[in-house]
Amino acid sequence: MNKHQKITLVGAGPGDTDLISLKGLKALATADVVLYDALVNEALLDYAPEHALRIFVGKRASHHTFSQLEINQMMVELAQTNGHVVRLKGGDPFVFGRGGEELAYAAENNIPTAVVPGISSSIALAGLQGIPLTYRGISESFWVITGATTAGMVSKDIHAAAHTDATVVVLMGLNKLPEIARIYQDAGRGKLPIAVIQNGSLPDEKIALSTMDYIVEQANVQQIGAPAVIIIGEVVAKHEHYGVKQGREDAIAV
Amino acid sequence: MNKHQKITLVGAGPGDTDLISLKGLKALATADVVLYDALVNEALLDYAPEHALRIFVGKRASHHTFSQLEINQMMVELAQTNGHVVRLKGGDPFVFGRGGEELAYAAENNIPTAVVPGISSSIALAGLQGIPLTYRGISESFWVITGATTAGMVSKDIHAAAHTDATVVVLMGLNKLPEIARIYQDAGRGKLPIAVIQNGSLPDEKIALSTMDYIVEQANVQQIGAPAVIIIGEVVAKHEHYGVKQGREDAIAV
Repeated sequence: MNKHQKITLVGAGPGDTDLISLKGLKALATADVVLYDALVNEALLDYAPEHALRIFVGKRASHHTFSQLEINQMMVELAQTNGHVVRLKGGDPFVFGRGGEELAYAAENNIPTAVVPGISSSIALAGLQGIPLTYRGISESFWVITGATTAGMVSKDIHAAAHTDATVVVLMGLNKLPEIARIYQDAGRGKLPIAVIQNGSLPDEKIALSTMDYIVEQANVQQIGAPAVIIIGEVVAKHEHYGVKQGREDAIAV
Repeated sequence: MNKHQKITLVGAGPGDTDLISLKGLKALATADVVLYDALVNEALLDYAPEHALRIFVGKRASHHTFSQLEINQMMVELAQTNGHVVRLKGGDPFVFGRGGEELAYAAENNIPTAVVPGISSSIALAGLQGIPLTYRGISESFWVITGATTAGMVSKDIHAAAHTDATVVVLMGLNKLPEIARIYQDAGRGKLPIAVIQNGSLPDEKIALSTMDYIVEQANVQQIGAPAVIIIGEVVAKHEHYGVKQGREDAIAV
């Protein structure tokens, strides 16, 4: 039983390694084990000490995929044997990151825990593109919704959101884009601006800008793939290229 | 006219100086001028070079308050005369931070701009308290709403949110707490868990945990003041002390 057992959930930010917090770096510098996800930039592992174990627990086609229970168990067992386990997660640990389940499992096993928040893609990727999630007179709120519900359906929250003035951000929802567009069209909002951002904050970042009516076509033209963030609302029109290259209404793109 | 004129909007994070990003620190290190807000931890100013001007543009009782237009003008004029202006804002620059208006004004004046996202209080303060904004089977989304609308009324988005399963986060809404509680009670949700966090991430952090029916009383008992973040939803019950000290239903507190 290691005397210094501890689990720290650390948010790694949206991708750019400089978008981790100082506190996150300090946690990494004292790690004995780092358990990291697929969306974490692996260059961050260089901040952990040489002796630290680095274990990939994300989902990739070529790897065995760990279940959440397996990850929880590894986390606790490695804290007991090795000491300080840093659970390094893309974005913020509690934004669809199952950080809550990991904290609960650690508590059940009497392992002390700490949390270091991260810059969430849900907020940061819009800002990096110059799209303000809120804007006086346009939007008094933003609503962040998962595109990947447990049941595999589009969240009922997206149906509700289509009838509000909230800026809506959908994470992990690219494969639901046609259905999301249809929900907004059915709500009479086919002309509402929408952006889809792939690999936000990284050198290969791509964006499609359009209206609900034409976004599926535009995302195809721009060859947008996962992981992608979807941003919906009048604030999207604040993007510097929105409408600039717009020969026809369906041809807004960067 | 300075050759190196540039404006960088930087998110300072929720208060703890270690919750700024590496990229934010790098921007500060090359600043010729820092314009900072009331919610920014002033210890961050130490990261700017010695020669840099440090100008407070936030709202405090004892100071002249700058209008947004005055701030925009100072930002542009100081970039033209001094070079690199870092606009240091609490949390993230685009979450009710008027970053969009500042970017637009800089663009009208042909000043190059950059954005460094920050850790937003809207997400981080819940996580630091061990409250997961989303949780499988409980919440598929979170909705962040300002408590301080231009019109001074409770946002209509809060009325809408009271009828959804979204976790709701209200920023700058402490003085609207009684009205918010009443809106939820009118929607038949008096038993819904709610947390109010003051000075989150700082040594003097305080929290009140209760249900809608008793939160106003609890916030008074705990002497919660501004700035505070309000978190509403079943996920609040995941807090380690929720219900623990609960002799009666109205006595949940930490």
